[in-house]
Amino acid sequence: MMAVEQSAENEKEAGEVDSELLRPSRRGLFGLLGAGAAGLALGGGGGAALASHLAGGSEAPDSGSVPFHGAHQAGIVTPAQDRLHFAAFDMVSGSGREELIALLRDWTSAAERLVRGQEVGTGIEPSNALLPPDDTGEATGLGAGHLTLTFGLGRRLFTGREGASDPDDPFGLRSRLPRAFEPLPSFAFDLLDATQSGGDLCVQACADDPQIAVHAIRNLARIAVGRAHLSWSQLGFGRTASTSRRQDTPRNLFGFKDGTANVMAEDTASLEQHIWAGAEAPEWMRGGSYLVARKIQMTIESWDRASLDEQERIIGRTKREGGPLSGGAEFDQPDFEAAVPAGDTEEPMIDVAAHVRLAHPDHNGGARMLRRGYNYVDGSNGLGQLGAGLFFISFQRDPETFVRVQRSLKPDLLNEYIRHIGSGLWAIPAGVQPGGFIAQALFE
Amino acid sequence: MMAVEQSAENEKEAGEVDSELLRPSRRGLFGLLGAGAAGLALGGGGGAALASHLAGGSEAPDSGSVPFHGAHQAGIVTPAQDRLHFAAFDMVSGSGREELIALLRDWTSAAERLVRGQEVGTGIEPSNALLPPDDTGEATGLGAGHLTLTFGLGRRLFTGREGASDPDDPFGLRSRLPRAFEPLPSFAFDLLDATQSGGDLCVQACADDPQIAVHAIRNLARIAVGRAHLSWSQLGFGRTASTSRRQDTPRNLFGFKDGTANVMAEDTASLEQHIWAGAEAPEWMRGGSYLVARKIQMTIESWDRASLDEQERIIGRTKREGGPLSGGAEFDQPDFEAAVPAGDTEEPMIDVAAHVRLAHPDHNGGARMLRRGYNYVDGSNGLGQLGAGLFFISFQRDPETFVRVQRSLKPDLLNEYIRHIGSGLWAIPAGVQPGGFIAQALFE
Repeated sequence: MMAVEQSAENEKEAGEVDSELLRPSRRGLFGLLGAGAAGLALGGGGGAALASHLAGGSEAPDSGSVPFHGAHQAGIVTPAQDRLHFAAFDMVSGSGREELIALLRDWTSAAERLVRGQEVGTGIEPSNALLPPDDTGEATGLGAGHLTLTFGLGRRLFTGREGASDPDDPFGLRSRLPRAFEPLPSFAFDLLDATQSGGDLCVQACADDPQIAVHAIRNLARIAVGRAHLSWSQLGFGRTASTSRRQDTPRNLFGFKDGTANVMAEDTASLEQHIWAGAEAPEWMRGGSYLVARKIQMTIESWDRASLDEQERIIGRTKREGGPLSGGAEFDQPDFEAAVPAGDTEEPMIDVAAHVRLAHPDHNGGARMLRRGYNYVDGSNGLGQLGAGLFFISFQRDPETFVRVQRSLKPDLLNEYIRHIGSGLWAIPAGVQPGGFIAQALFE
Repeated sequence: MMAVEQSAENEKEAGEVDSELLRPSRRGLFGLLGAGAAGLALGGGGGAALASHLAGGSEAPDSGSVPFHGAHQAGIVTPAQDRLHFAAFDMVSGSGREELIALLRDWTSAAERLVRGQEVGTGIEPSNALLPPDDTGEATGLGAGHLTLTFGLGRRLFTGREGASDPDDPFGLRSRLPRAFEPLPSFAFDLLDATQSGGDLCVQACADDPQIAVHAIRNLARIAVGRAHLSWSQLGFGRTASTSRRQDTPRNLFGFKDGTANVMAEDTASLEQHIWAGAEAPEWMRGGSYLVARKIQMTIESWDRASLDEQERIIGRTKREGGPLSGGAEFDQPDFEAAVPAGDTEEPMIDVAAHVRLAHPDHNGGARMLRRGYNYVDGSNGLGQLGAGLFFISFQRDPETFVRVQRSLKPDLLNEYIRHIGSGLWAIPAGVQPGGFIAQALFE
């Protein structure tokens, strides 16, 4: 065990101890040789190949790994990693409960390995070279990179296909639909593209390295073949929210700090109150949450021509510091009553239609969500504009929270500069226990 | 100056010393306070805002900056950064020589600031808040991130629009066309999309952080407004080549190590021979190079179903170590003569149509190029497949080198699994001197 660096939170699973003892990890080898000797040994090309060989074959968990098992799924309160690959899947027509369970079992096994920085299945070298490798290989040698895989269930798994004259129940889940799991309504500024919306299943892959997140989604898609297919996916390159007080607040593509007033991992009382499903939910959902994804295109070329005054008025915060326009620094509370004289009357320092006001819990019955979105750029369109925006992700105890806040944003000044072009809602079951599989309690 | 960490290669420019002395950088502030005091001072939200304010206003170059000026443009032999945003621009109809020169001057000024981690122009806070900010802001606080910006000129700037009955010469450059700057021919497996090909100008932005690369392209596109517009752009998330012996060899989306036999920054003789234009070129191109970009879609779902034997036979290297199939480790030379008995005859250990054989300099008259490509994923298509592949970039002294190698690849076994869907060729002028601008010698 001395050869294995291991995070304090990392669980040890039965059956893996032997392989760890038998095969030293690359890091372990360095430890045995001492740094100087390792430097010498790996100076040439042959050394690099040797190290690569050892790393690839290792069963040791990477020190940058986030535990997969727990009361809640990882990737929600986990400090937001910098890169995202989000994928939606649809069950193959004709597949049923058995296929769904088998898929969730197989995904669980793969996820347990992926988040430890291990190749899936038998890895990139199958026992028989006449077979395709189990793992596609592009993340070999990159480590775990704090990969988290968060799995969600779409409403159609419970309700069958909408509009069917004789609604079916292919997965035998109709009676298990949570009362809160209502479809999202249409919103005033929706311009949704069906090819970037919805899905029977979702997987949110977040990691420090995009190649690790892409590798995970690709291999989960392979495993799904014949049972579910990838319906759409989205890469995000920059996180737009902090989920821990230890993180700096990042900036979105409007150039403003985003996610300042988020629910953070350290706010355990707020998490219980606002994020985790509780006694109101069916037992299989308790400790779970609901994930809302919204692909929000920004018309950044128009935004970039707005004056600084206008930009700050729309957001309600200063551009450089992110302090509320009522005064103070980034983490100071906005004072929505603050006003300045304007002729015979006075006007609020934070505009009545500023984003920070309309989205604030004080104006939404105390509603709070945990935001975990990412900046994206999908190349550019035929008008010379970047296809750029925010892939918004939020977690909340009840989807109604998102609906309430989104409706409050109807007069938002920001609406002139954004278009909601994709949307999805998934139930995120509670965490997986060792030996169990994703959403197991739903099928019991 | 004690407050400023500076790379040994970083140049100092006249006129910037004063501002550095007057405004301490964020890092400088930490130095003055001492680490303990800084920790205390920045424990709360107000502290973070203070630090952000100082960082944003700083004129000090970031320690992670790559010099912009030099004999050659940066971003060629610079150790390949992990992230790419590549953009192609077309000159606005009716624009001429004056607009082109003004654009290249403005891009030079902006690039000089961007690669130092500084906001462009007057930054995110204009002198008058009724004006739009000069800088869009999303990279504020992220530092330089080893950003390089490499600028190229398309052939149409010299020849005018092809097919025009009375060919024009809007930029007055017809007589300056280098003899070597011939358009790429059609290749056997081309399926090129015109909306992802060509362009009057290109900018290759590479950085450690994708948000830094995206910010650079976005701000250069803003600066171009009215003179040139973005015609297409491509993000790449993972480098597929090393350009320095200090770098590990990365993997492409076939899961194989890529770029093993690249021309490296340390191979100065090979760079002179194969990469930098020399006496054969017009004076303005000497020390420059030619950039070929090819967007190569991979049918990864088919590839992933091929056996390990088949995959290795196609590439000609082992999957885990990247050693040639003739034996040895990654950096050992392939032995193309090596054979094994097969019935009454023998067969080569490296297939006659393996990629490593056909692409090797030994089979291309010694032709070598410096590869600098990136993995990409553009979401997925309606068939449940990832839109994934390699955004190939190579630099060579003469475009004919690329043409020769690409023609050699006609029988390549790999062609079953790839489609060339985008293409471009640009002349990369020599580096910029302090006080000068991109391609200045071309206009003198």
